[in-house]
This record gives sequence, C-alpha cells and structure tokens, in this order.
Amino acid sequence: MTVQHMKWWGWGVEGVAFSHEDKPSLAPFVQKIIDVDLNAAPRPPMDFADLDVPQSRLTAQLRAALTEAVGGDQVIDAALDRVVHAYGKSLRDLLRIRSGDLRRIPDVVVYPADEAEVSAVLDAVVAADAVLIPFGGGSNISGSLEAPADEHRQVVSLDLGRLNQVLAIDEDSGLARIQAGALGPDLEQQLGERGWTLGHFPDSFTYSSLGGWIATRSSGMQSDKYGDIADITRAVRVVQPGRILATRAVPVTSTGPSVREMILGSEGRLGVITEATVQVHRIPGKRVVLGYFFPDWERGVAAMRAIAASDATPSITRISDARESAFSFATRKTSKGVAKLMSSALITVLKLRGWDLERLCLSFIGYEGSAEHVARQRKLVKKIAAEHGGFCVGSGPGELYDQKKFDTPYIRDFILDRGALADVSETSAAWSQLLPLYDQTIERANKAFEQLGVKGWIMCHLSHSYHSGACLYFTFAFKQAEGDPIAQYDVVKTAVQQSFIDAGGTLSHHHAVGTEHARWLADDISQPGVQLLSVLFVGADPGRNLNPGKIIS
Amino acid sequence: MTVQHMKWWGWGVEGVAFSHEDKPSLAPFVQKIIDVDLNAAPRPPMDFADLDVPQSRLTAQLRAALTEAVGGDQVIDAALDRVVHAYGKSLRDLLRIRSGDLRRIPDVVVYPADEAEVSAVLDAVVAADAVLIPFGGGSNISGSLEAPADEHRQVVSLDLGRLNQVLAIDEDSGLARIQAGALGPDLEQQLGERGWTLGHFPDSFTYSSLGGWIATRSSGMQSDKYGDIADITRAVRVVQPGRILATRAVPVTSTGPSVREMILGSEGRLGVITEATVQVHRIPGKRVVLGYFFPDWERGVAAMRAIAASDATPSITRISDARESAFSFATRKTSKGVAKLMSSALITVLKLRGWDLERLCLSFIGYEGSAEHVARQRKLVKKIAAEHGGFCVGSGPGELYDQKKFDTPYIRDFILDRGALADVSETSAAWSQLLPLYDQTIERANKAFEQLGVKGWIMCHLSHSYHSGACLYFTFAFKQAEGDPIAQYDVVKTAVQQSFIDAGGTLSHHHAVGTEHARWLADDISQPGVQLLSVLFVGADPGRNLNPGKIIS
Repeated sequence: MTVQHMKWWGWGVEGVAFSHEDKPSLAPFVQKIIDVDLNAAPRPPMDFADLDVPQSRLTAQLRAALTEAVGGDQVIDAALDRVVHAYGKSLRDLLRIRSGDLRRIPDVVVYPADEAEVSAVLDAVVAADAVLIPFGGGSNISGSLEAPADEHRQVVSLDLGRLNQVLAIDEDSGLARIQAGALGPDLEQQLGERGWTLGHFPDSFTYSSLGGWIATRSSGMQSDKYGDIADITRAVRVVQPGRILATRAVPVTSTGPSVREMILGSEGRLGVITEATVQVHRIPGKRVVLGYFFPDWERGVAAMRAIAASDATPSITRISDARESAFSFATRKTSKGVAKLMSSALITVLKLRGWDLERLCLSFIGYEGSAEHVARQRKLVKKIAAEHGGFCVGSGPGELYDQKKFDTPYIRDFILDRGALADVSETSAAWSQLLPLYDQTIERANKAFEQLGVKGWIMCHLSHSYHSGACLYFTFAFKQAEGDPIAQYDVVKTAVQQSFIDAGGTLSHHHAVGTEHARWLADDISQPGVQLLSVLFVGADPGRNLNPGKIIS
Repeated sequence: MTVQHMKWWGWGVEGVAFSHEDKPSLAPFVQKIIDVDLNAAPRPPMDFADLDVPQSRLTAQLRAALTEAVGGDQVIDAALDRVVHAYGKSLRDLLRIRSGDLRRIPDVVVYPADEAEVSAVLDAVVAADAVLIPFGGGSNISGSLEAPADEHRQVVSLDLGRLNQVLAIDEDSGLARIQAGALGPDLEQQLGERGWTLGHFPDSFTYSSLGGWIATRSSGMQSDKYGDIADITRAVRVVQPGRILATRAVPVTSTGPSVREMILGSEGRLGVITEATVQVHRIPGKRVVLGYFFPDWERGVAAMRAIAASDATPSITRISDARESAFSFATRKTSKGVAKLMSSALITVLKLRGWDLERLCLSFIGYEGSAEHVARQRKLVKKIAAEHGGFCVGSGPGELYDQKKFDTPYIRDFILDRGALADVSETSAAWSQLLPLYDQTIERANKAFEQLGVKGWIMCHLSHSYHSGACLYFTFAFKQAEGDPIAQYDVVKTAVQQSFIDAGGTLSHHHAVGTEHARWLADDISQPGVQLLSVLFVGADPGRNLNPGKIIS
C-alpha cells in the first residue's frame, strides 16, 4: 500500500488545479479588488530538483531501530518524502517551500502499518532522544507539523497514512472504531458502503485525517447537526512512550478532568492518536442545502442567531458578508448555479424592493432528516428569514456550493502563482460580540493593507452557529508588494488575530494553536491556563520528544 | 448573610422529612421487598451533643491569616459547622456521621464573600501548608468533601455559600455569569425573574451548587435538551495559589487541550471554582412531561434508543424497569397521580392486551418549546412508542413526577431510621452494552444480597439518552444485618460498580470519582490516563494543598 501525498508546493494532488477560464467574471473582479491580473503569465514554483534539501541527520542506529519497527521499505529518507512532510499548507508554509526555505525538515519519514508499529517507532525515537511529529493528511495551517528551527536532535515524521481502516461499526450504538490515519474520503467511503456517515466535512476534508481532526479540535460544514469533532469523538487510543492510553467508548462520563478531552487538541504533544471511536449516523433520508438572500450582514447574522434560538435544528447555517457574496457571484460559471440567481429579472425585483445590491448577503442553510422533518425545518427557517428581510432562492446555489465546497484551497495556489497572497483566519465569539468583532477586524485588516501600501481584500462568512455564539471565518488577499512576502503576510495575519482577541473572540474556532497562533494563547486562556497546559506537557513528555514547540513554544 | 446548611445527619433542612402515612401501599411493599417494617419505631440518629467532636487543630497563625482574609465572623470553628462540612451525603457518610465516626473533620470553616477573599484564603492555606476543601451545597455522594483520614496538616473547609449571585446576563448570547456557590433554587430564581432558565436539574438540585456541578461533571433531568453541565459551562474562573485562571466565554474553541474542560470534574484539585459563564435559555412557551407504559424493559429501552436516533428532541427520556415502576406505584397517594393509572379499568385493558403486569415499565418523556414544536415531538414519540408496544398514559403521572422529583433523597433517611440501607450507583454505556450491563448488575447485586444473607432490592431507570448510549441509574436497598453496616454497603456497592466496569460502562455518568469510585479509575481511563491526571494534579499543586486524595488517591 502506498500513501498518496499532496503536491510538495501546494494543495491537492498533481494534475488538479483551479482554473478561471469558465468563470468570465472572476478576472475582472480580482483585478478590481486587489489589482492582480489573472490573465498574466503565472510565476510557477521552482523545480523540485533545484531545491537545496538539507542532508538527513538520521543515524545508523536510529535507522536500524526504525527498520526493526516498521521494516526497511517503510523508513524513507528520500528528499521528496522529507520535503512533503516538512510543513503544512498555510500561506507561510507555501511561501517558504516554494522559495526553497526548508529549515529543519524531517530526517526520515516512517509509515507504520498498525498501532504496534507506531508503538515501536515511538519507543525507538524516545530511546534515541529524537523528536516525533505525527502526520495525517498534511493540511494543517497552524504550523503544527514542523520541527522547531533550532532542533538539533533527529526529527522523525510519523505518517499515519497506512492506518486508514474503519475497524468496526457498532450498529446498535451508532459508533465506529476508525484508524487515525483515515482521510475524509477513505472513511466516508467505508462507512457509506454500510449506510453510515461520520458527518464531518471540514474544508480540508479531502486531505485531512481523523487523527488530525482530533489533534486540532476540527469542525466541519455540517457540525451544526453532527457536532464538532470534540462531540463526535467518544473514545481515543493514544500511543505514548512504552504504553497505550485508551478511554472507554461511553456516551458521557463524570470521570475526573476528561482524559479524552485532553487528547482533543493535543497536536501530538501527548502521544500519537492511532484510533478513535466516533459517532456515526445513518445517511439521512433527505438532505438539501438551500440558498437565501438577506438585505445586509446585520440582518443576516441576526437571522442565524434567531435560528439558533429557535426549535429549528438545521445541519448548516452559513452566511457570507456582502464582499464574500460578491466574490461568490464572481466565481459563477456562465448560466449555472449562482449565475442564474443574479439574472436581470431578479435584480429588478430586488431593486424594486429597495435592496442595495452592494450589501446583499448570500446564505446557505442545510437540512437533513426525514422528508417531514426537513419540510418542517424549512418552514421554521422561512419564517425567521422573512422576519429578518430574507428569502429563499432555491436549491440551485446550495447544490453548487455542496459540489464545490472542497475546492477553495486550490484558488490560493492559483492566485499565488499570479502574485497575490491569501490565507484565512477564523474565530468564535458570543453573539453579542460578533458584529463589533467583525467591524473591527475589517477595519484593522484594511489598515494593515494601507500600512503595506497594497490593494487588499478581506471577506467573511459565519460558518457555524451555536446557542451562545458563532464562528466567523475571514479570508484575506492582497497583491504582493516588493520585499519579503512572509513579512507582509505577518502584518495582515497579526492584525486579524489581534482583533479577534481584543474583541473577546478565541484565537481559533477550529484550526488549533500550533505555532502560528501560540503567541495569543495566554490572552485566550490566561497565563494560569498556559501553566496548566505546560505542566501537562512536561509531565507527559519530560524529554520533549513529542512534537515539541507546539501550542506552547 | 447566613449560609443555610443541611441537617448534619441527613438530607435537607431540619423539619422537612419523608412520610409514608399518606401512601398506604408503601409499607406493605417495603415489607415484601426488603423485610423492613416502616411502622416500627424509628431508630433516630444520636444527639449532636453526644458526638465526640475532635479538637480543632487550627493554629493561631492560620486563624489570624484567615481572619485577615475574610473577617473574624466568617472564620468558624464551632462544632456544628465543622461536622456539617466533614462529609457529603452518601450512605457511607450518613452511617459514619450518625454513629459519631468523625475522623479527620475540618479544623475550621471559612465563608468568603467574593473571589478576592477566596484568593486570600487559598494563599493563606498554602502559606501554612494546610489543606483546602471547597464546599458548595454538601450533597456529594462520592467522598469528594472529606480530608484523608491520615491528614496531619490543618484542614480548612471553604464554604462558597455567600457567592450565590447571578452577576450578569448577556441576553443577546444566552449567557449568564453566575457565582459558583449559588444553589439550584438560588440561581433559578434570579434567572427566572428575568425570564431565563439554566435548565440544570439534578436530583440534588435543592442542595447543590453551580461550582459543585462543574467540579463533578453533573447532569440534570432535562439534560437531553439543555446538555450536561460540561455542555452548559462556557467559561470558568478558578482561584489558584497566587493567581486566577480564567477562560473566555466563547461557544467553541480549538485552543489546545481545553483548560475549561480540565476544570470540569476537577473536584477542587486544580483550584477553587468561583464563577462560571453558562448557557441560559428563555423559559419555554410550553413544557409538559408525559407518562408512557411499555410492556417490558427491553422494549422500553429500545424505544428510548429509537427516540435518540430519530428527529425528535425531547427534554427528558426516562424509563424505569419493572421493579422501579412497581416502587413508583407503591408510593402513590390514594386516588392521585400514578394511583389513577392503575385503576381497575386500566388493569383490565392491559390484561386483555396480554400484558404481564409484573413486567410493566413506566416511562416519562418531557417536551419543551413552542406549542407547535411540542405537538410535533409528541407525535413523533407516540409513533415510536407504539412501534415498541408502548402508549401514552397522559400528563398526570408526569406532573406528579415533576413535583416530587427532588424528594427522593429524603426517603433514604426515613428508611435508614428503620433499619434499611440504601444508596445509588449509576453509569453510562453504549446502547449495545446496555441490556447486558443491566442484567449482569441485577444478578451481581442479588448475589451480594445473598452473600450478606439479607433480603435486598435493586431497581433501575434509564435517566438520559444520547446518540450512542444512555445512563442507567440503579437504586439498591436491603435490610441491615448484624455487624458493620458500612462493610455490608461495601459488598453491594462494590458488586454494582464492578459490574459496570466489567460490562463496558464508566464508573459514573454524573457523580464523579471522589474517593468512592477511585479504585475503578484505571479500569475506566487506563493506567496511562491515570498518569496523565496525576501529572496534571502534581504539576498544578505540588504541595498537595488542594483537596488531596480525590480522584487519584
């Protein structure tokens, strides 16, 4: 079995890429908002052969121990494997890897076949006082996958790609035991064959793994219904040095501070997650995603809050601000999906209603369950939408959204080739803080663009609703200026993250801390909270062999 | 402000007690099942004056420091205060305190007024190398409130009773900041005045506090709708030595292993919870609890599972086994509530249907929301109940259940006075494990009764349903034999708990670990899980000043 990897320099597998040729509105739109010409000749990444790959520091002794653990053909120190496992896929990662800035990449990549082999690898790593970094799909954007730049010990990347099986389904309980290395499509296919779904669909779904989701406390697009991964995960198995930590698959327990919950978000610092028992659901009888229009962001967000407070329980509650809505319309293909929405007839109607089309917000609400349940939910939401000036525009845009939902990351590579820097930052906050947080973040990002002297763009959607608040997901882009692009990225990213913290939000709703967000940790959970994490990590891993430097640097 | 306490020897305040005089069927029922005569003269607890209360070991130095912290009139070493704070309310606790077995009771009780005073007390305790035990309502049944028997240092009980205010309600977000010492009725009254409810109603509601619920990972009767306290609690403030740990009130965060979740279930070992931000809900338009009859336990449990898997979202899903149903019928008042249910006409109908009345199970399902929502939920459940042979018997028994739901603990004192030992144990397990766990537990308890040579009784209800499983709540009682009653209790309690563990359950769904369940901890979360808790506690409290001996002994 071979583990397939993403491109060393970008998102997805070789041969799959974004194209704007069938989206006639996009190039003019991008030209307008960030002054970048999509029709200009792309500036591709450098050739792999031209990369200056650091020599592996793997000792013969550790190689022998790893070979004993997993077999020689699963101990790989080829340059491509080491480079692929060096970073995740944040803009910082892409900029570094495309420019040949490789730093402290792994000395070796190992591919264990099962939990026993993971155990043997970890024990060998600890015995050699080396460093072990677990690797799932490699989609992380928080810096959780890289070794500290000054790490002088050997660095072993543990790729869990061969642990990709649904081991068992307890059909009475709606529980499945699944290996941690299973990527989204792997496990959904295996579950789907038996009529089940996990219901966890993050943007990274195609290239992220169950273990990665747990290690970073991931959320998915249907989490409003299925819960975040923290809710879905009922038990964990974790390989620690010389031992296996295993919790019981019970629905709820009052047993102490929850060890299961300590593993959630632990980013490899407490061991290697090899398996989890997760809630699975029968594939629903009916599933539909509907599009809605709201006259402005304020009323749209108020509608999402009203839905969260109502008896309705949709699977998706999503609304884009006016800028992101405009972007969606600009990515439309001729006469398809959202394109039809903005027909001249509809525009006329909206104008007659007095809508300011510059402020129009596009929303998607998803429904799952029996046909009767879905019908009732739609009715409840229709009433709430109307109370906030919104109305349903049918299933066309929702279907398109549903088909294209995993394609967004490809766009970043496409525009990066054309001189535009883009990334995302997201947070969650109480409903009462949400609009001030939004306004402040837009303002601060725009100030950051100004400071850089670039034409920039920031757009946002509300991606998940909860009883007490919601997740706001921002995407920013700007034309690269002269000089260091990473420094430019840092100015904008820092402005956005600091705004979250200053407005009462958390440093990340579902992308974890890693190294990228670590400097806001004390703001988020207070210095005594950081101390509590610190004693946990030091106590569990006194030798700092387990993915050191993450969460707390 | 004076903090009111429960009776030193039993449940509730002086002057309130259970009576069987208006329940004509109860005495014959109890006589039959455990051979105890409720009409016999009660054996009351000893007089408080006859207790041999150990001398307080409080030093003048620590007294001075505590006096500086909270004022002299809030530093109490009177015998009654010290005895009231010595134990919780488990059967073990009641047996010990009623027989004058006081062991290592607190040397002093302090009543801080606010977080700053809690901080000052804790700092004084740590400076004196004493031990601090936080005390909320005192209803704990897991041994979380007592000092280790061999504790040679001074023991300070910190009573949070004066921190009982709802500090603020964020009406946009459905979030309330509430002080940890607020008892259930305190906080529901303050919330209710403004149209809100926390929706957390454990059996101990009247005498348990928000901080206690968080410290033990409590569940309530309406948790199917409102969530367990772990779901309800969005942020915590915790006083630690020399510092305050505070997390942000955000709906969800991917920030590391969650510090908020580490505080949940920490039983005072990580500091003193002084405040939490919790989800609150508008008092629902409609609320109804309906009774249902099922022909047997197996079909009743299957119905609860089907409800959990359906689109229905009731607030309560509860079903008693045949023994507990019979007990409910035996506690009926003449011609009221459940009494009417078992009218001769109904019995005739059931017999005509071929029901075995010895196997009949009584269920309660609760509904909350708009009138339309409730109507639809009822319809969904009606169909599921029918598919499992059950039917609705109206709102009468549900109303009675709702009125009497907090009275159960009084019964234990009443029968204890009459020579019967009784307590509870509960667990949660996956649906697939539930019936085997139930059967085995009944069998093991009966073997334990046999071993003791006593007439014993064990009954059970399913109290909470989740996607993947449920909570089973067992109540056991038996006639006290000659010899040490605590040893007799241990035989039965151990048999029941060991059965939970052997059948794949957890050691407790909502009563925490304390000292009572600590010996099953490694079975529940594995030895490496215990180690992880251990490094957390040792790291956070190297001097073992914070409620030592709990969770891990």
